[in-house]
Amino acid sequence: MKLATYSADGQTRTGIVVGDSVIDTGIDGTMIDLIRDWNRLKPALEAKAAAGGGVPLSAVKLEAPVQRPGKIFAIGLNYADHIAESKMATPERQVWFSKAQTSVNGPYDPIEIAKGTMTVDYEVELVAIVGQGGKHIAASDAPAAIFGYCVGNDVTERMWQHAVPQWSLGKSFDTHAPMGPWIVTADEIGDPHTLGLRCFVNGEKRQDSNTEHLVFNVWAQVEHLSVGMTLEPGDILFTGTPGGIGAAMDPRQFLQAGDVVRCEIERIGAIEATMVAEG
Amino acid sequence: MKLATYSADGQTRTGIVVGDSVIDTGIDGTMIDLIRDWNRLKPALEAKAAAGGGVPLSAVKLEAPVQRPGKIFAIGLNYADHIAESKMATPERQVWFSKAQTSVNGPYDPIEIAKGTMTVDYEVELVAIVGQGGKHIAASDAPAAIFGYCVGNDVTERMWQHAVPQWSLGKSFDTHAPMGPWIVTADEIGDPHTLGLRCFVNGEKRQDSNTEHLVFNVWAQVEHLSVGMTLEPGDILFTGTPGGIGAAMDPRQFLQAGDVVRCEIERIGAIEATMVAEG
Repeated sequence: MKLATYSADGQTRTGIVVGDSVIDTGIDGTMIDLIRDWNRLKPALEAKAAAGGGVPLSAVKLEAPVQRPGKIFAIGLNYADHIAESKMATPERQVWFSKAQTSVNGPYDPIEIAKGTMTVDYEVELVAIVGQGGKHIAASDAPAAIFGYCVGNDVTERMWQHAVPQWSLGKSFDTHAPMGPWIVTADEIGDPHTLGLRCFVNGEKRQDSNTEHLVFNVWAQVEHLSVGMTLEPGDILFTGTPGGIGAAMDPRQFLQAGDVVRCEIERIGAIEATMVAEG
Repeated sequence: MKLATYSADGQTRTGIVVGDSVIDTGIDGTMIDLIRDWNRLKPALEAKAAAGGGVPLSAVKLEAPVQRPGKIFAIGLNYADHIAESKMATPERQVWFSKAQTSVNGPYDPIEIAKGTMTVDYEVELVAIVGQGGKHIAASDAPAAIFGYCVGNDVTERMWQHAVPQWSLGKSFDTHAPMGPWIVTADEIGDPHTLGLRCFVNGEKRQDSNTEHLVFNVWAQVEHLSVGMTLEPGDILFTGTPGGIGAAMDPRQFLQAGDVVRCEIERIGAIEATMVAEG
């Protein structure tokens, strides 16, 4: 099933995406409420999806599937080619940082270049959305802990990222966590380690890889994070970006106002944004 | 005014602390709702405080003043003596990391030593709570952006903090962000850079400094964070810890089950926790 958060008629709701339409779930609550109550809601939503109807996707505005995740963690240096271009050693342990809740952005919303900054970069990533969550989740139990997947762009202000040893602030600028266009539930994806992912800037392909090349796969990620932290419904994991970032190009290429950045993942969909100078 | 979040009779509400009593604000919502609507609510709450009444603090359970902050950012290496004991250079720029929302803990609640870990450490810190917030807040405007202050303990799993270059995960374990016992509003504190702060373990004084020794003061912190991120009502800033952490002692001293950790700040109050092994 594909589940979206969308706005129409001044209201924001959750919906089921079927073909080019979205069907209101009728649920009074956010995507996090839906995820929390998924086991109970699923049969009724499957029936709604089968019954069809809804409104055209073109008549609504898609929002980030989870608009206010409790936490967003993102793993660094998790594809071999990205590690090489970053001139780093392959980490022996998972390297995680965070993105602020306020950085969440809709799948087609503009991405801001903040006043006084000029080194904004893209990073296409498979995003895993936590389902029931928990703590001390073994890798073997991790598939059941993931609700679904969407496309993410781990937008990064490189100067702020590297001005200090800690990356979280340079990763947390407003609009710098676009996600979407919807969540494809885990049962529909099956193994998430077989998905092609690509990023284009103004139509030029910059990143092109497959989640099979993840250094630490999604199950290992869930196990590692849940040693210390309770993972909760709707928590967001950015699972790493492959090679091809603008900062590693020669000469370096950063995103400029007017650039169009498209991130796509096989069997999920695409998100696309125009870069704008902060007003 | 002192504002608390407390539980009694199976309900969690906000209250005004007057002497040894707490008076229900009567507000239907969390501390974040109260902060967001503060300008409108303040006169009525001042009248409630003046009228007295309420129930004894001893009859309720104090919770973290903000139980689900949108974000928690914490600054590292921000007191000269802590920088020296960490064998680091004084940073030219502010070094920020994050703590997960799920790490929030009540002021007197036990702090967990997670399964398989053994290097938990304390860090007493002045915590600033964002008021109306905003973006691009100049240092000169920052005092008006802060709602109030409480005591925090930036509890840290040192092995997880230093196993990788990024600190946020080792700073985000469940129960590792105790805060409280209440918020003292900014108007009552005035200049927050004159406050003595201390940490005791089993009655032994381990940290003893004053916020006058902050390298980057609270106003500079607000200015720096708000370049890229919109600060929102109830967002939490851990403003740095002074020297005296257990990891810098010779020999190193980490917290053990049964240890009692007390953090206190002049003109605010104290929080105190017993260390427990995760069940």
